[in-house]
Amino acid sequence: MRLAWKLWLENEGKVFGPGPAKLLESVSDSGSLRKAAAELDMSYSKAYWTLRAMEEGLGFALLTRTVGGPSGGGSTLTPEARDLLTRFRAFETEAEISLGTLFAKHFG
Amino acid sequence: MRLAWKLWLENEGKVFGPGPAKLLESVSDSGSLRKAAAELDMSYSKAYWTLRAMEEGLGFALLTRTVGGPSGGGSTLTPEARDLLTRFRAFETEAEISLGTLFAKHFG
Repeated sequence: MRLAWKLWLENEGKVFGPGPAKLLESVSDSGSLRKAAAELDMSYSKAYWTLRAMEEGLGFALLTRTVGGPSGGGSTLTPEARDLLTRFRAFETEAEISLGTLFAKHFG
Repeated sequence: MRLAWKLWLENEGKVFGPGPAKLLESVSDSGSLRKAAAELDMSYSKAYWTLRAMEEGLGFALLTRTVGGPSGGGSTLTPEARDLLTRFRAFETEAEISLGTLFAKHFG
């Protein structure tokens, strides 16, 4: 028997979780929301509206659009988005350790 | 912003979680799977098959049927079901404290 768990953040509805974290990481890697969406097998419009809903719930912007330039423009994470992502991943990592320890205590 | 989380147990598929825990508690209180299902707004057949699937995954029986007697028969939890339920609730309680502390650390 093994433990499964999920955690996410809410603020009058879900605002952030593993899916959005993956999407932001993919934007950060590829420099493009369109590429990030494709990589995660999401439609661009779903990725776009997911981000918009998150920004609404969080109260700050997650992406900055860069227009033109040698790479033809794209998206980068705002400092607030980077901060949220870093906190969320650190929180998840420590939660995993902590829940694993408690699981072993009660079910080991 | 607040934390939301869910944890459950798996063994080649989900075997136990908050829903089943509530169902077992309700059987324990009412002495009847039929009453427990009604109390949780589940159909009797859904409750019955949920329990059967859990027993399959867990490898032990959860309910003992008592037939006849002054109360007309019903269901009680097996010792293994009581043990699982106790462990799960204790685990959840400690997980809540632990996750709350980590959430405050990273997002407080």
